[in-house]
Amino acid sequence: MQKEDLIATKNRITPFIHRTPVLTSRLLNDIAGAELFFKCENFQRMGAFKMRGAVNAVLQLSEEQKMRGVVTHSSGNFAQALALAAQSIGVKAYIVMPENAPQVKKDAVRGYGGQIIECASSPIAREEVAAQVEKETGAFFIHPSNDRDVILGQGTAAMELLEDHPDLRFLFSPVGGGGLIGGTALAAHFFGNNCQVIGGEPFEADDAYRSLLSGQIETNDSTNTLADGLRTQLGDINFPIIQHYVEKIIRVEETEITAAMRLIWERMKIIVEPSSAVALAAFLRNKAEYAGQKVGVILSGGNIDVNHLPF
Amino acid sequence: MQKEDLIATKNRITPFIHRTPVLTSRLLNDIAGAELFFKCENFQRMGAFKMRGAVNAVLQLSEEQKMRGVVTHSSGNFAQALALAAQSIGVKAYIVMPENAPQVKKDAVRGYGGQIIECASSPIAREEVAAQVEKETGAFFIHPSNDRDVILGQGTAAMELLEDHPDLRFLFSPVGGGGLIGGTALAAHFFGNNCQVIGGEPFEADDAYRSLLSGQIETNDSTNTLADGLRTQLGDINFPIIQHYVEKIIRVEETEITAAMRLIWERMKIIVEPSSAVALAAFLRNKAEYAGQKVGVILSGGNIDVNHLPF
Repeated sequence: MQKEDLIATKNRITPFIHRTPVLTSRLLNDIAGAELFFKCENFQRMGAFKMRGAVNAVLQLSEEQKMRGVVTHSSGNFAQALALAAQSIGVKAYIVMPENAPQVKKDAVRGYGGQIIECASSPIAREEVAAQVEKETGAFFIHPSNDRDVILGQGTAAMELLEDHPDLRFLFSPVGGGGLIGGTALAAHFFGNNCQVIGGEPFEADDAYRSLLSGQIETNDSTNTLADGLRTQLGDINFPIIQHYVEKIIRVEETEITAAMRLIWERMKIIVEPSSAVALAAFLRNKAEYAGQKVGVILSGGNIDVNHLPF
Repeated sequence: MQKEDLIATKNRITPFIHRTPVLTSRLLNDIAGAELFFKCENFQRMGAFKMRGAVNAVLQLSEEQKMRGVVTHSSGNFAQALALAAQSIGVKAYIVMPENAPQVKKDAVRGYGGQIIECASSPIAREEVAAQVEKETGAFFIHPSNDRDVILGQGTAAMELLEDHPDLRFLFSPVGGGGLIGGTALAAHFFGNNCQVIGGEPFEADDAYRSLLSGQIETNDSTNTLADGLRTQLGDINFPIIQHYVEKIIRVEETEITAAMRLIWERMKIIVEPSSAVALAAFLRNKAEYAGQKVGVILSGGNIDVNHLPF
């Protein structure tokens, strides 16, 4: 994936996404001892960066593929993103969701015109059902994070941030399935001015941290973290990018995630989901290393059930 | 208060306040059946529009008055606003607060350098203690809402909104002590293009609604509303402005306030306090009247205890 691929991606998806604002906060800068620039993907369409990659993947299909539709498996933001992206482009979307997924998420997918196919809640069941839908309908399968076009799409958030603030020295992103941090790392490499990308990951789902150490894709035995968007593991397309272009991954405790989320809510008056707060928590854990520097932080999304907050 | 007074006020306070963004939301426009423009004073310094009026009032003091300091009585946002405004300008602030005010609010006032003087929680006790502080220290008393300079300061939010969107046909504001809606009505009169100002007020504290009916300032026997910023009553300086320039006041139920607040949180991903949601709730209650129109909504503040939400 080259510079030109990112530029073409950005031009392609622009009509279908929001250029999200970059917010700053004096109070948070004082706490951070650095200049923080928050890329607010919580204000993105459907409430998360996932819209970028989903739109890009759907737009890359041939006309014939578009007529047959798209399919994915996700219980989270990618389910909504693919449904809305497909709807916006006039394509049918089949979304395989675990039968125990929250009703509010199912309602959101249906609200965006997606057709839900329920499955058992294991990763294997999801993949099997998605493969079955693919076979029966001819729909094109799009993986939520381990897909070239999805990774390129996610990278456009960092491209926009670096357009607005070209002199960022560091850029923090949460690490889940690897699509966002992979795209972010590519964008920083091609468009940053010596900008280091650092990942934030919960101790409770630190597969990416361990993968960088071992040199192979590791899995999580359990994923007991508030940051529900980060419970997934890396894939064979994004892992090499992460190995090559990500400086390091910092792990954070659950209490640090809650504290960072609370800071953002109370000081910036914006709603972010726990996965987003992981990037700020990682920065804060090591903040002495970045004293006085310009630091970008990707706030990945804002989809949270306000009836079930961690504080 | 004339057009020139508002212009001079805006120039005076600009270095001390944020020009807050105006946000829009496709989803909310669909629900509203109109084009809504939200002036986000929840992003203002200290989290509410009150900063505008407080800065203006402090800046209008003589050098001698500034040396003696300022005093107010408030358990809410004006306490924090005056403390921060005074600190920003290098003036001492005495803040009379009820002894049962939430610890988080007292901490915020102290964080902004304000000196708290506790009093019993009745309105009379507050005024007596404030008068005593005024007498003992020579500090200048600034009323949270019934003060010429405060009203002019609050009007600058609507001025900015109308600069960005000169063709708003309606402008909704919450009604509490009358400072915000008074200033908003003046701004719409002098800078709007036939822009009607409409107030939102809880049924549970509908003193302003009744005051417009009776032609005299009415009080509330009880103020059992979530919208804690709107429990106060009008004053003799802002009431004539409201009588003259406000089109009407729409009352809303507590359930409507919660529903409007939830819409803003969930769809716009921003944090507003219940008082802010009253303006949107008032619009939604009568939305058929504004179908297809451009409508401004002032989101007055975002200071809320996230451990005590109404949903």
